[in-house]
Amino acid sequence: MSQNLPIDLSELERIVQAENSNIEISQLHSFLYAAAAAPQRPDNDLIFDTLLPKRSKALNTLLVETRDAIRDSIQRNILRPEKTADRLSSLRSEMTTQKVDGFIIPLNDEFHGEAAPAASERLKWLTGFTGSAGMAAVLKDKAAIFVDGRYTLQVRQEVDIEQFTPRHVSDEPLSAWLEENMTAGECLSYDPWLHTENSINALSSLCVKMGVVLKASDKNSIDQVWEDRPKEPLALIVPHLDEFSGKNSAEKRDEIAGILEASGSDAVVHTLPDVIAWLLNIRGADLPSTPFALGFAITHRDSTVDLYMPQQKFSSDLRSHLGNAVRVHNRSEFSAGLAALADKKIRIDPSVTSQWIVTQLQAADAVIVRGDDPCMLPKATKNIVEIDGTRAAHIRDGAAITKFLHWLSVEAPKGTVTELSAEAKLRSFREMGDRFKDVSFSTISGAGANGAIVHYRATEKTNKTLDKGNLYLVDSGGQYLDGTTDITRTVAIGTPTDEMRERFTLVLKGHIALGEAVFPVGTTGSQLDTLARAPLWKYGLDYDHGTGHGVGSYLSVHEGPQRISKMPSAVPLKPGMILSNEPGYYKTGEYGIRIENLVTVVSQPKRKGAERDVLEFETLTFAPLDHTLIDLSLLSPSEISWINSYHQAVHDKISPLVDGDVKDWLVSATKAL
Amino acid sequence: MSQNLPIDLSELERIVQAENSNIEISQLHSFLYAAAAAPQRPDNDLIFDTLLPKRSKALNTLLVETRDAIRDSIQRNILRPEKTADRLSSLRSEMTTQKVDGFIIPLNDEFHGEAAPAASERLKWLTGFTGSAGMAAVLKDKAAIFVDGRYTLQVRQEVDIEQFTPRHVSDEPLSAWLEENMTAGECLSYDPWLHTENSINALSSLCVKMGVVLKASDKNSIDQVWEDRPKEPLALIVPHLDEFSGKNSAEKRDEIAGILEASGSDAVVHTLPDVIAWLLNIRGADLPSTPFALGFAITHRDSTVDLYMPQQKFSSDLRSHLGNAVRVHNRSEFSAGLAALADKKIRIDPSVTSQWIVTQLQAADAVIVRGDDPCMLPKATKNIVEIDGTRAAHIRDGAAITKFLHWLSVEAPKGTVTELSAEAKLRSFREMGDRFKDVSFSTISGAGANGAIVHYRATEKTNKTLDKGNLYLVDSGGQYLDGTTDITRTVAIGTPTDEMRERFTLVLKGHIALGEAVFPVGTTGSQLDTLARAPLWKYGLDYDHGTGHGVGSYLSVHEGPQRISKMPSAVPLKPGMILSNEPGYYKTGEYGIRIENLVTVVSQPKRKGAERDVLEFETLTFAPLDHTLIDLSLLSPSEISWINSYHQAVHDKISPLVDGDVKDWLVSATKAL
Repeated sequence: MSQNLPIDLSELERIVQAENSNIEISQLHSFLYAAAAAPQRPDNDLIFDTLLPKRSKALNTLLVETRDAIRDSIQRNILRPEKTADRLSSLRSEMTTQKVDGFIIPLNDEFHGEAAPAASERLKWLTGFTGSAGMAAVLKDKAAIFVDGRYTLQVRQEVDIEQFTPRHVSDEPLSAWLEENMTAGECLSYDPWLHTENSINALSSLCVKMGVVLKASDKNSIDQVWEDRPKEPLALIVPHLDEFSGKNSAEKRDEIAGILEASGSDAVVHTLPDVIAWLLNIRGADLPSTPFALGFAITHRDSTVDLYMPQQKFSSDLRSHLGNAVRVHNRSEFSAGLAALADKKIRIDPSVTSQWIVTQLQAADAVIVRGDDPCMLPKATKNIVEIDGTRAAHIRDGAAITKFLHWLSVEAPKGTVTELSAEAKLRSFREMGDRFKDVSFSTISGAGANGAIVHYRATEKTNKTLDKGNLYLVDSGGQYLDGTTDITRTVAIGTPTDEMRERFTLVLKGHIALGEAVFPVGTTGSQLDTLARAPLWKYGLDYDHGTGHGVGSYLSVHEGPQRISKMPSAVPLKPGMILSNEPGYYKTGEYGIRIENLVTVVSQPKRKGAERDVLEFETLTFAPLDHTLIDLSLLSPSEISWINSYHQAVHDKISPLVDGDVKDWLVSATKAL
Repeated sequence: MSQNLPIDLSELERIVQAENSNIEISQLHSFLYAAAAAPQRPDNDLIFDTLLPKRSKALNTLLVETRDAIRDSIQRNILRPEKTADRLSSLRSEMTTQKVDGFIIPLNDEFHGEAAPAASERLKWLTGFTGSAGMAAVLKDKAAIFVDGRYTLQVRQEVDIEQFTPRHVSDEPLSAWLEENMTAGECLSYDPWLHTENSINALSSLCVKMGVVLKASDKNSIDQVWEDRPKEPLALIVPHLDEFSGKNSAEKRDEIAGILEASGSDAVVHTLPDVIAWLLNIRGADLPSTPFALGFAITHRDSTVDLYMPQQKFSSDLRSHLGNAVRVHNRSEFSAGLAALADKKIRIDPSVTSQWIVTQLQAADAVIVRGDDPCMLPKATKNIVEIDGTRAAHIRDGAAITKFLHWLSVEAPKGTVTELSAEAKLRSFREMGDRFKDVSFSTISGAGANGAIVHYRATEKTNKTLDKGNLYLVDSGGQYLDGTTDITRTVAIGTPTDEMRERFTLVLKGHIALGEAVFPVGTTGSQLDTLARAPLWKYGLDYDHGTGHGVGSYLSVHEGPQRISKMPSAVPLKPGMILSNEPGYYKTGEYGIRIENLVTVVSQPKRKGAERDVLEFETLTFAPLDHTLIDLSLLSPSEISWINSYHQAVHDKISPLVDGDVKDWLVSATKAL
């Protein structure tokens, strides 16, 4: 291990040894670099309790500052597109050493979740690409990067295209590029931790066709040449209390064991971090905006669990929280854990399980049963404690949004508010709320034309002022101990144009139609998607994203299997599922509009004459919609009545949490139309 | 061949030989029995021109009467449930002779279309079951019949359940029954003409698991023991003129050849009768309510076609209509035709192609490419001539419906109208219209509780009077040379209840919402289905059938690939497609409501500010909706305006085709609300 980052640790070493003479310097270094590999979150300071439970305030401050400096240094060191040629050259040397002619570099890590820690940012390290989806392939004298339609412009700005030819992932796929550029007899290598069985099956057929040898590599070629590669993130793992989870882990494990029993399986291998967090009622801080601890787990038919996660990260009360039915192991024991499943029937989810795991199970002669992780549906259908917590979190979140919208109404007309300053202000309002842990995703703070970029993230380079006569779109959320929020509001700065009001009102009509939907048990989200689009369609308009995604309970802001989308879905909506309702409209180069509330599915009491059991949505999000953007002439009486009832509820729920000018502003912002 | 039906042919033979001394008696017999195997249709008398082009009027009458008597006799002889035990016993003897322990009897024939001729009604012959979907399996000492939820009651009324255990096709499937009742080492046989590759693949896996030998039988065991099994139907095949098809067959064949070229295939095997009729612009009369001629065809990449259909059935001008690029063969040459595809890339649609064909192609070492028949989409997207023809046919059909509704308004209150008398009266009004060839399906004429049976067909046993204070539902259609129609109207006899008016109005709201839909290019029918259901859902109501099916152009009243349904669909709606819009509501034991118009997809001219290319529906069906069933208080102003515009159009289009009292009635039936 070489950690040559330019941080001077001598002062810190001195104080640590003065206060705790039994700490070795190498142990301190190792700890700090691992802690720095976890993202910046308020929670993450707690990890120092595991190394130095007793420490002076001064030492604590120095520890935090040092770790944060190392983190910045790590991040700067990963993203160095100017080094792409050098890094690519080292990679090719390593490929020669390994006697392979090609290597594939996906963006994901071995857990196949939405985000990955610094140590797994191999694609970013090699190419400088910062998008959320992509893959690179390197041959002896050619290399290419494959991205989707969202990133065709960005990839050319970020990546050295002399080294990596940018290609559209579906129009000019990896398979075609490999066929063009590899010849029979060559060897293509991949890291089996980073690819699922599905993707390897496709690649394998292609290689057979080309006469190319496909080789699972023991050693990731990038890791071999990545100097100062970050360590696995070290962040505290704490119990998630029953008062928030509503069901203890033993009950959950029994439920999953019951599903295994019913389907005739002996065990299931879990890889998704939110599944493991839900199942064991634990929360970590290894990744940004999501309270996950990275690791693997195996649930057995007898309700016991093998958890592969370093105990070094455990809070002092976690071991007893987990109980005896959860056996804790280091990551290095996972292989033996899989080997012990010999001859058993093992369930895996092929869309999120590494080929490495599949190969281990096959070597053990396990019978592999493919299907969704059995935790997915129980996790998605929240219990009453989770729903109550989410309701409460949304009211605190709504107060933060209300304070922010009031602040915006005062400051923005002065012409001094920027996307970044607004984002920071909004965060500060959220941080005032009880049980706030972090934002639930990177805020989308988009003024004018930037609002039309669906996955926009403001940077110093792109930062715009909120100008009068234009719109401001802000999509943000919070992670609270009792729930996860996600809300989008679109606000007129000054006086909006008639076109803006027309389009906002059409989006609002779709939002209301979906929010008011009543539908029979068994209905899927794809059956409801059209309700949100139909008003835009009448005007020859639409939006190019889904209408709603699932949301977790102090877990990921994006979760399945529920969703509202034009893509076919086989998953019926069930009571307790939380989804977003977020139609939009985007005028490229001018402005963006999105209106997003979270909703939860509830059973509707049977009305007189009703013959079917029907469901509806309860709105969870409470914050004002901008009156000045509503064109009343486009609304039906029942739509106006929906807006008025909604605003009345916003007033009644939020008003007790705000004071003075904000309270007054809230009254006028929610008055009946 | 033994045809021992009790028809005295001596008088007929005498006259035939007097008028045409060169006709042999055996030839006459054979001809008559084959003609009688085709359904009763006005067109079908034309077939006598091919045997006896010159004949006296008296002889013609006798030929028709004799053929019809034979047909009745054939039908009576097939449906004899009291003979099930005997027939099952003969079948088991034959199974013993063939050394097999089990045999499967599906309902479909070798063309895998919606209907089958008398010779293929093996399931009905064996079991007495008359439903539209089902399958039986016979073992040495057990037998079962598998039906879906629509037929669980009917199967017990029709079938001798001492012999055949009724089972639900998906809850208690064939596979489970075979597993329970067959043992390793036994042999299960099937007719490879009657099963698709998909179904045989599933059965094959099951048999491997059970250790049972699965055997494709050369000789269908039922055909071996079915005395007087009907002949293949003999009905005239005539050209379908360009003035109706809008595109000659040569152009269509070039288009299909282009698709083969583009996909790298050498040929495609067609099995669906409507595909062959469309491709070659020919129409036959082998099946009830659809102008199909049964046969097979192969289209080659050079735009030529091999057609396997007996020339005996051709009208005098058909051979020259087909031209030199169409080679005509007997059915017996089909095997050789497939063998001639050796080593070529051959496209088949696995959902409608017999395993027999697949086996022949595999034996010829052809490379099989699986996919939809390339005719499906071009057939579904009608050209302007077809659409114009359909528009015209619908106006004539609307006049017939209008006359019928007027007649009903006069006669039904007298209490003398029955389901069957109404059905006959409606047919007689249609027959008065130009270009009428047949009804397009068996009329659903349902009074009161019978209207709640979705696939009801009135019989002497079930026939009800249209009673005051109840509803009457009539779903019917016509086959016209220029188009196919399908319309449902629900009418109050006397004064309807408030509940009936509420539910009719909710169904109407759904019908209007779908009819008015505007949607972007690329939208599928499953995305629109919810629009038709949402008003019912709000009241806790729904209907358990699809909302819309595709309709052909003087072809089948049910055609794919387009449909409007909650089932996921990957087929975008395209201009020129014709679909039904038919939401409903059914109160079991009381009444049924359905409102059905046909619509065609059209491009909407771009409106100001529109950014997407959008489509909408043009209504094709014009006939009054019953004003007395509309509850105005449930309708929005725009819905009322839709009804008034629709009724204005009904009046303007239909009024010129009706006179006197009907004309006066039409004025009042279409007056603005």
